[in-house]
Amino acid sequence: MTLMESLQDFQTPAPEAALNRTGDLRKELKRAGLNGFLVPKHEASPLNEERLAWLFGFTGSMGFGAVAGERAALFVDGRYVLQAREQVPDEAVEQGSLTREHIAAWLGETLKAGDKLGYDPWSHNVDEAGWLARVCGDIGAELVACESNPLDALWKNRPPAPSGAIRAHPIEYAGKESSAKIEDIAGDLEKLGLDAAVLDRGDSIAWLLNVRSTDAPHTPIILSRVILSSDGSLDWFVSAERFGESPPDTLPPGIRVHAAEDFAAALKGLKGKKVVLDKRSAADGIRLHLENAGAKLSFERDPCQLPKACKNRIEQDGARAAHIRDGVALCRFLAWLDDALESGKAVDEIGAVKKLEAFRIATGHLQDISFDTIAGSGPHGAMMHYRVSESSNRRLCEGELFLVDSGGQYLDGTTDVTRTIAVGKPNDEVRRHYSLVLKGYIALACARFPKGTTGAQLDGFARQALWSAGLDYNHGTGHGVGSFLDVHEGPARISKGGDDVALCAGMILSNEPGYYRDGAYGIRIESLVLVTPAQSIEGGDREMLGFKVLTLAPFDSSLIDVALLDAEERAFVDAYHQRVREIVSPLLEDEHERAWLEKATRVL
Amino acid sequence: MTLMESLQDFQTPAPEAALNRTGDLRKELKRAGLNGFLVPKHEASPLNEERLAWLFGFTGSMGFGAVAGERAALFVDGRYVLQAREQVPDEAVEQGSLTREHIAAWLGETLKAGDKLGYDPWSHNVDEAGWLARVCGDIGAELVACESNPLDALWKNRPPAPSGAIRAHPIEYAGKESSAKIEDIAGDLEKLGLDAAVLDRGDSIAWLLNVRSTDAPHTPIILSRVILSSDGSLDWFVSAERFGESPPDTLPPGIRVHAAEDFAAALKGLKGKKVVLDKRSAADGIRLHLENAGAKLSFERDPCQLPKACKNRIEQDGARAAHIRDGVALCRFLAWLDDALESGKAVDEIGAVKKLEAFRIATGHLQDISFDTIAGSGPHGAMMHYRVSESSNRRLCEGELFLVDSGGQYLDGTTDVTRTIAVGKPNDEVRRHYSLVLKGYIALACARFPKGTTGAQLDGFARQALWSAGLDYNHGTGHGVGSFLDVHEGPARISKGGDDVALCAGMILSNEPGYYRDGAYGIRIESLVLVTPAQSIEGGDREMLGFKVLTLAPFDSSLIDVALLDAEERAFVDAYHQRVREIVSPLLEDEHERAWLEKATRVL
Repeated sequence: MTLMESLQDFQTPAPEAALNRTGDLRKELKRAGLNGFLVPKHEASPLNEERLAWLFGFTGSMGFGAVAGERAALFVDGRYVLQAREQVPDEAVEQGSLTREHIAAWLGETLKAGDKLGYDPWSHNVDEAGWLARVCGDIGAELVACESNPLDALWKNRPPAPSGAIRAHPIEYAGKESSAKIEDIAGDLEKLGLDAAVLDRGDSIAWLLNVRSTDAPHTPIILSRVILSSDGSLDWFVSAERFGESPPDTLPPGIRVHAAEDFAAALKGLKGKKVVLDKRSAADGIRLHLENAGAKLSFERDPCQLPKACKNRIEQDGARAAHIRDGVALCRFLAWLDDALESGKAVDEIGAVKKLEAFRIATGHLQDISFDTIAGSGPHGAMMHYRVSESSNRRLCEGELFLVDSGGQYLDGTTDVTRTIAVGKPNDEVRRHYSLVLKGYIALACARFPKGTTGAQLDGFARQALWSAGLDYNHGTGHGVGSFLDVHEGPARISKGGDDVALCAGMILSNEPGYYRDGAYGIRIESLVLVTPAQSIEGGDREMLGFKVLTLAPFDSSLIDVALLDAEERAFVDAYHQRVREIVSPLLEDEHERAWLEKATRVL
Repeated sequence: MTLMESLQDFQTPAPEAALNRTGDLRKELKRAGLNGFLVPKHEASPLNEERLAWLFGFTGSMGFGAVAGERAALFVDGRYVLQAREQVPDEAVEQGSLTREHIAAWLGETLKAGDKLGYDPWSHNVDEAGWLARVCGDIGAELVACESNPLDALWKNRPPAPSGAIRAHPIEYAGKESSAKIEDIAGDLEKLGLDAAVLDRGDSIAWLLNVRSTDAPHTPIILSRVILSSDGSLDWFVSAERFGESPPDTLPPGIRVHAAEDFAAALKGLKGKKVVLDKRSAADGIRLHLENAGAKLSFERDPCQLPKACKNRIEQDGARAAHIRDGVALCRFLAWLDDALESGKAVDEIGAVKKLEAFRIATGHLQDISFDTIAGSGPHGAMMHYRVSESSNRRLCEGELFLVDSGGQYLDGTTDVTRTIAVGKPNDEVRRHYSLVLKGYIALACARFPKGTTGAQLDGFARQALWSAGLDYNHGTGHGVGSFLDVHEGPARISKGGDDVALCAGMILSNEPGYYRDGAYGIRIESLVLVTPAQSIEGGDREMLGFKVLTLAPFDSSLIDVALLDAEERAFVDAYHQRVREIVSPLLEDEHERAWLEKATRVL
């Protein structure tokens, strides 16, 4: 999808649609003997799953719709409150906060004992469906799995399921043969006394089979299903038409490919088997089929998630190469921006986004951007998930900040980087806040920690300087990043809740503290870091891990109040800037850009 | 229990006992048609629950025994590996690590499909029993709840259940009437649409009813059960004989007291009710009875745990008073120790423990010590849960460290403090390690953090300096501490796993980083801290929390390498020492002790 196409998403559909379609759905439910129906919308889902957009006109990336009795409701998180109000008519659809408590309370008010609430078991994961069943149970109502989604019967012109070509992800990028990955995971299953795993995540399958496609926006995953047995045999349920002339040559020969339609029937074959299913990602429909088949379910994490997150040598080398390439594009963009602003040219958010994308395309290797660029000038920078639209577009103004959070998908790696730029001369308060964010960024980047440490234990490092000043930011500090895959991947993260998975060598995570002043400005500094064994420390008695910064783009020195940094922090910035200059400068063809980089990376 | 009595615990029983008793148990199981039986031992359980000591001769504070087929096994954690090897004969009882994985693997090897594994549902919590049922299910075996514990039929001279007098915990210490606590918790239940809570924790009940007894070692809890209804009515199952002449006057008048034996029958009365039960503490027997009665179970945290942890003003004042009193005892002890060592007197671990206890008794307010004192000289200091015995007792030697971790139970508060003392002149490496631990202690003590922050996010602060040096410690950084209750209480903690509960104003937690060199020395610095709203910070835009240190005892300055502290850290130590001196000195009667304190708290 191009930038302009993705901007189309933000055109508000006619509010009447929500009224009419909700009415039609109610009739359909009545016919089916149901008192209500649920319409969830997950992040990064394909167009044919955009039921919430069809029903209510809401196009946010995540939400939860419910129609029950004479009421209808849309639940969204903080990011989408304003957008939902704009897109969805209040009179037809109530709005609530996207939390289990709020949804349960609404259902409790709306349903009565004996009611039947319909749900599409292929639209909810096992964990969510289990929770909904308990909510209904408490009311005395019944959660009823629908054989087919009643909304789909009404949705004319529903887009088809993703059917893009499935391409090989060659060994020069993947670094490990698919057959070896399958063997390892099958071996893990066997060791645990498990017979099979049912895989239902597009990223796990793309990683396991060394294949990529275009099934989610900006994310080269393949929405499909796999049954992997502990003996190493593998059944893949995906349309073979997507292979074109022949299957990708990265696929191990023994793999059996079946039509997606045959998946449910194949689950019957797991009768009596001990089967791993990931509660938090697998569709509840899989659970239902497996339970009906008499399989014994073991709700464990998808066994591909941890090995996928720990990048191998080749993937690590690829990430470094991708970041050098992306760093060149970024430095060119920052040079262009500085130049345009200094020469008094009018620059607006859309113009900047297009220019940045053009520099990435100019690398000759961009497959896609890795998410819709966040480019917030002034107060827009404080809206954490701001996406520019034609109507919101804003010119960069003297004395303001400009926050740009963007990334690229390259065959050898996925990037994600945020830099905040001062337009004109920033005031002291802004420089203080930027410097506090930078101190947090540095504290995390420099952390050494023993094996077994979780992201929750490190999260505070990035906040300590802000906390001491009575400040904070309302988002996590770091998320995992895939290798030409999701720009947000699990299972590790650096955040308050990130205590269930230890950081391991080879993981790539973001380091992105920030500070946001509502209605005024946003500051975020984000680089990707690679978890690596720390150099041995004199007198140390443990194996330690640390981070290596992958991202290569200077910080805006005009935003740094050097007096707030200690000697080690200054040395960190200087060494980083030197590294950026040494690596990127020889790759810049334009002398003017080189001169800019020279200046931007001067010693503090 | 006096120190000498508790030392008796460590006398190893005759190894034959384990052989004979295991054999007797096998016969008993055979009669009952069972193939095995489980014998868990939880922390701080009363003497009549010491089944693992009776069966195998193992007297550690925690463990898990299993007898199945011809095999028997004892699972203990790292603390008790050596002790278990000494106390329990290898030939009769295999030993394993106290983890679910190890226990499940052993059961998997030992049981076969169709076997019946017995368990006492009153000895396992709901969570553990559920896990054991799954383990058995995987084997094809059955977990069978025994009506009575088969081991108790064999145990001659089994001690009676705790029957100590139940005393009032007056409002001048409790700070809030029991009736008000009950009203609040009942109100919380009502708000959540719940009908009742079954309480099964001795600390929750002691707190809720403002009563104390002596039901666990050094811990004035009352092992009993309560059914609290959302209408505020309360049934307490406890022997009324324990009240003496009349019930404690802190008990609200409406409370109904029943014999403990009537509890199971009373659960039947909860038919159709929505009942809160804490999976991780409540006996599985309660779950069985409630399910049989047709109650609807809601597995939530014990509703007393969080409010109990957030001490009210009076409890906070009490904690401050208890710590001043305890600080006087500690300073006197440290002065005595320095004096004895300087004058070349022989001091051994038992002698030091007795002396410290004597100083606490001399305050005139000690109810009990709050746990068996850890007093480890030299290599004993590196054994994290070392308890001195007559056979392990060791003289303090020149050039070594002496780690003393101790606490007192006072009516107005519970204390827990660790100081590490140099015997003679410490070498540079030891001083470096001590200083790194101290830096972590200071970083945590000085932390400011917003409401909602969990202990997991702060844990790293106490480790950062050690981590940078390639070092760490294998224990959590902080645990909650009760108000004349458990010295270890939930629900918050400062540790890797402490991410489920945010720290709240009024909580009392320990701050106890350490460093341990096996076979050589242990360093730990521990003070209790009170979570308090932080003073408003200029330019801050959030409500922040911080810690106030309660403990009053100087650090051993000879162990501090001042060059390793920055200016703020030095100022912290100096200010703390000044505060200790100003508060404690006027309370020392002995001029010699005052002189010692003057010297010990000199500016660095």
